[in-house]
Amino acid sequence: MRVGFIGFGEVAYSLSKKLLQNNVDVVSSTKGRSEKTKQLAIDSGVKIVNSYEKVAKLSDILISSTSPKTALAIAKNYGILSNGIFIDLNNISPKTTKKIATFFGGNTSSADFVDGAIIGKVSSNNSTILVSGENSDKIAILNSYGLNVKIISEKIGDASSIKMLRSIYTKGITAIIHETFQAAEHLDLSNELFETIAITESEDFIYKSKSRINSLATSKSRKSEEMDEVLDFLKSIYDEDGLEFNSIMSEAVKNKFKSLKKFDF
Amino acid sequence: MRVGFIGFGEVAYSLSKKLLQNNVDVVSSTKGRSEKTKQLAIDSGVKIVNSYEKVAKLSDILISSTSPKTALAIAKNYGILSNGIFIDLNNISPKTTKKIATFFGGNTSSADFVDGAIIGKVSSNNSTILVSGENSDKIAILNSYGLNVKIISEKIGDASSIKMLRSIYTKGITAIIHETFQAAEHLDLSNELFETIAITESEDFIYKSKSRINSLATSKSRKSEEMDEVLDFLKSIYDEDGLEFNSIMSEAVKNKFKSLKKFDF
Repeated sequence: MRVGFIGFGEVAYSLSKKLLQNNVDVVSSTKGRSEKTKQLAIDSGVKIVNSYEKVAKLSDILISSTSPKTALAIAKNYGILSNGIFIDLNNISPKTTKKIATFFGGNTSSADFVDGAIIGKVSSNNSTILVSGENSDKIAILNSYGLNVKIISEKIGDASSIKMLRSIYTKGITAIIHETFQAAEHLDLSNELFETIAITESEDFIYKSKSRINSLATSKSRKSEEMDEVLDFLKSIYDEDGLEFNSIMSEAVKNKFKSLKKFDF
Repeated sequence: MRVGFIGFGEVAYSLSKKLLQNNVDVVSSTKGRSEKTKQLAIDSGVKIVNSYEKVAKLSDILISSTSPKTALAIAKNYGILSNGIFIDLNNISPKTTKKIATFFGGNTSSADFVDGAIIGKVSSNNSTILVSGENSDKIAILNSYGLNVKIISEKIGDASSIKMLRSIYTKGITAIIHETFQAAEHLDLSNELFETIAITESEDFIYKSKSRINSLATSKSRKSEEMDEVLDFLKSIYDEDGLEFNSIMSEAVKNKFKSLKKFDF
C-alpha cells in the first residue's frame, strides 16, 4: 500500500512519520514549494517525485493537506487521478466538501472520495482523523498503520460538520475564559480564580486555559473570520428545514474576538 | 469548640455531618421552620435549641446558611451575637458581603466577620469553602475538623468575588454547550460530537455536559437572573476605576438563558 500527500506541512510531516514507522510507502512532491517545505519533506524520509500527477497516480490513498483556499483546486486537478481513494484533510466547510464530492464517481474519476477532519494537534498521540462517506472503511485501514481513524457515518459532510460544530465549542470556551479572567485580573484575583475553577474542572484546566488565552493574541482575527463561517453553516443547516437557529452565543464569540484590542494578562 | 448553623438546608446538613464525625459540637435551631427542615436537623444529630439567639451565643463559629434573600437580616439580627466569629455561606454578592461587614467591629458587635463561598457540590468530597477577610484563619482551623477551607486573601469581598467570577465561567460553558449540541442534534450528530470533543477534553466531558444541558430545563430563569447580578458586578468593579468592560459573552449568556424555550434533546 502506498500513501501520497499533496501539500507537505505539519499534517503531512506528522502523519507520514507515523506511516513510515509502520512500513508504509509514502510519496510526495515538492514541486514549486518553499525551501522550508522541501526541507521538511526531505527530513521526513518520504519518497519525492517530480510532479503532483505522479503522486496521485502512485497512491492507493491520496491525502490533500495543503490549505482551505487551494483544497477545491487540488481535488479537481489531482484528487481525481488517485489510484484508489482521495481524502481531504484541509480545514474546509461541509459545503466545500460536498462540492468536492461531485468531482468523483461517474465518468469523471475512477477514484473514491472520503470526507476527513483532524481533531486535536496532529503531532500528538491522541489526535484522530474523523472520516465520513461510503468509502470510509478504505481509510480506516490506516488504523493498522499507526494512525487513529474514526468513522463517523456514510454521509459526505458529516466529518467536516463535526469539525465545524466542535469549533463552536472550543472557540466559545476560549471567549468565555478570556472574559472571565480579564475581570479576575482587574481584581487581582486571577491566580485564585484559576485554582478555584480547577477544583471542579480537570487537572490541566489552568494550563489549558492560559494557553487558550495566549493563543488569542495572534489568532483573534482568524478566529473571528472562522466564526463567520460557523454562522453561515448554522444558518444553512436550519434554512434547509425552514427553521431559525438561536445562535446568540456563536454571534457573541465572533464579536468578542473582533472587539479584542489587547492582551495584557 | 462549637459550631452553630442558622438555616438548616443541604449546606448545614452536609457540613454538620462532617463536623460531627470529627467530634465537633454542632448546634442549630428549627424554630418556625418547615417540617422538612426540622426532620433534616433531627436526622443530622446536631443539638437543637429553641432560639436563634441561643445558637448565636453558644457558637464559637456561627454559620449563616439560609438564603441570599435573608442573609442581610440574619447577619444583622443574629450574626453579631456570635461568641466568636460569623461567616456567611449564602450565595450573596460581594456588595452584600461588604454591607454585612459594616455590622461588625466597633461598638456594634464583639464578633468578627469572614466572607465565605462554597465551591462545588457541598455534599461532595472535593467541595471547598473559600474564605477572605482578616479573620480567615479562625475559619481555616476547620481544616482540622473534616472541612476543606481555603484562604483567598485578607480582603472582605474577595471570596464572594471569586464565586461571582467562577459563575461567569460555569454559566458561560453551559450556554456554549447548549448551543453547540442543539445544532449537532439538528444534524443527528450529537453522540458523535460528544465523543469527538471528549478526545481532547477530560474523560468526564460527556457526563458533565449532559448534566449541564439537563440542568437548564429547570434553572434557566434563575440562571438568567443570576447573570443580571454578574453584569451589575462587572459594571461596578470597572466603574470604580472609570473604565468600561467588554462583557459581550456575559450579556450573551444572560440572553441565551432568557430566550431558551424548550429542551428537546
